Amino acid sequence: MRLAKLQTQLSAGQSLLITEPSNIRYLSSFTGSAASLLLTQEQAFLITDYRYTAIAQSQCAGQPLTIICRDRAHEPFAACIERLQPKQQQLFCEFDHLTVDLFQQLQQCMPAVSLQAAPNWLAQMRACKDAGELAATREAVLIAEQALDWLLPQVRLGMTELQLATLLEQKLFELGAEALAFPTILLSGPRSALPHGKPSDRVLQHGDWLLLDFGAQVRGYRSDITRTYVLGAASANQRDFYQTVLQAQLAALAVAGPGVSGHDVNAAARQVLAASPYADYAGEGIGHGTGLVLHEYPLMREGCEALLQPGMVVTIEPGLYQSGFGGVRIEDDILITDSGIEILTKSTKELSILCN
Amino acid sequence: MRLAKLQTQLSAGQSLLITEPSNIRYLSSFTGSAASLLLTQEQAFLITDYRYTAIAQSQCAGQPLTIICRDRAHEPFAACIERLQPKQQQLFCEFDHLTVDLFQQLQQCMPAVSLQAAPNWLAQMRACKDAGELAATREAVLIAEQALDWLLPQVRLGMTELQLATLLEQKLFELGAEALAFPTILLSGPRSALPHGKPSDRVLQHGDWLLLDFGAQVRGYRSDITRTYVLGAASANQRDFYQTVLQAQLAALAVAGPGVSGHDVNAAARQVLAASPYADYAGEGIGHGTGLVLHEYPLMREGCEALLQPGMVVTIEPGLYQSGFGGVRIEDDILITDSGIEILTKSTKELSILCN
Repeated sequence: MRLAKLQTQLSAGQSLLITEPSNIRYLSSFTGSAASLLLTQEQAFLITDYRYTAIAQSQCAGQPLTIICRDRAHEPFAACIERLQPKQQQLFCEFDHLTVDLFQQLQQCMPAVSLQAAPNWLAQMRACKDAGELAATREAVLIAEQALDWLLPQVRLGMTELQLATLLEQKLFELGAEALAFPTILLSGPRSALPHGKPSDRVLQHGDWLLLDFGAQVRGYRSDITRTYVLGAASANQRDFYQTVLQAQLAALAVAGPGVSGHDVNAAARQVLAASPYADYAGEGIGHGTGLVLHEYPLMREGCEALLQPGMVVTIEPGLYQSGFGGVRIEDDILITDSGIEILTKSTKELSILCN
Repeated sequence: MRLAKLQTQLSAGQSLLITEPSNIRYLSSFTGSAASLLLTQEQAFLITDYRYTAIAQSQCAGQPLTIICRDRAHEPFAACIERLQPKQQQLFCEFDHLTVDLFQQLQQCMPAVSLQAAPNWLAQMRACKDAGELAATREAVLIAEQALDWLLPQVRLGMTELQLATLLEQKLFELGAEALAFPTILLSGPRSALPHGKPSDRVLQHGDWLLLDFGAQVRGYRSDITRTYVLGAASANQRDFYQTVLQAQLAALAVAGPGVSGHDVNAAARQVLAASPYADYAGEGIGHGTGLVLHEYPLMREGCEALLQPGMVVTIEPGLYQSGFGGVRIEDDILITDSGIEILTKSTKELSILCN
């Protein structure tokens, strides 16, 4: 179904070579780490080697494609592509993924074939989730939020970031996550100002910021949620800093919906941040599509003119990062619907956690 | 130290662009997911963006490099490379990692610069481990073997592959693994013939093959061990099949040492397999270097003429895979020493596990 839809984009003499693993999984159900897909108008080949042939036969059963077990020792990759499609004139490749080595190998092996960057077909197809993808995403969100609900009452002063992150990750697996959506970001105090920091041995103290950015993975699909708290009562500075981010996030949520661009969603949040005393501390961009990979098309970022469409799942996550003071980021996963949005993540955005 | 060693390879007017994350980590200690390194004879730049600048400053403290925080919205990557090295004539890139997109961007931005494939410098440097790398590797091996020792008495008929894999992975983390070395391969019965299969809901039964291929990660360095068992008493067929692989593995271990090529180590195992009744079921290649990534230079494979050197850590893992019957793989991690090898993995290679 997905393969056939993509094949309608091709004309006679055109082929499409797909090397990016999540695109291969999306189109063929194959989840191994070494394969590529070659499509023409009428044919589809999954090219792998002896290590993955049996898995490919099982995972791709029923798909309209032919599995090719390439003998890596005796047939170079490009020679295999040429053998399967001797009549091709134009070969679309994923230039944002294909390596220069493979590109040059293809050029040398098929000098008469024009190698071109594949259009944005797959990113656009993948952006709108079908019922099965949405069900997996909802499960991934539920697991993440149940783990968070369980974790917050366990937070104690004197624990380290790493200890707390380990508790959270164990709970995610216990609740059925097949993997983490990404390495957990759990940062406290001034370390919360590191937009992509890793948990450390820093000990949690009264009055600390506590920022958690994490998610679960279910059947390949990911949740991605961020909440920021203060341990104990928040100071006036902390409250004001936090409220600025929250208002920016609510402004973006209010604007998001079908027919709105990522640029405009970003602008709604940016306006709030730019008008605040904290304008200098705002991060770039405020969200991204999510699915089989964490950061997918479309982006909520300056200059991203693609319009949101029903079925897209994107994150809304503005943040402020003031070195030495701390960082606040608040992130929800939303589904674009026919009439607006559904906010998938429901966790409270209250600032203070009481703990001892 | 590592940076300086690499810089001696460069002449005036030459630069080296490193984009592969484990190479960046090896040279700079930076572990974030978005950076590149630009080296000349005399200068080194770590190019990242606002998300990772603070982490880079902390992780690269004391390293002879300059951290560049690129404004991604306003400075394309190639423009940054050009600005930092306006006098370069020749730019070496990792053609086995660089994407066609970035290559073309560099070409357009710097038409006078010759872009060339970087020689094998880094793979060769990384292959020989220093004391710190060896200590991390030894810890990773110890964790894996302690987890295995703990796991085997837990094996019960009626458990699923997935249940057993989950127990193993939890134990690895409990013992101090910072991550899995790779997704655990734990396969039973005929599924053991899948060289890279994933654990499934298949239930363990008396007489089954049980193949475990797994490892721990410590400070970035990995262990990688495979053992294959039979649940209960092995049949004559199973014993013969297993002994063939074991003899092949012992033959490779007997040959491995400084000054021996990966080709010859592979050949020693292949001879045993080829002379057996199971020649048709042998996998390709029998091992690989391991370190910051699981599969590194050098390979133990036909045609790999590079000679093993003291300090290299490689795996020796021949296997037989007979569809419908099962697969056996036995894998040790070895350190090449001045006089021979040290086998790092000590777990027993006895075939039967008694369980009920």
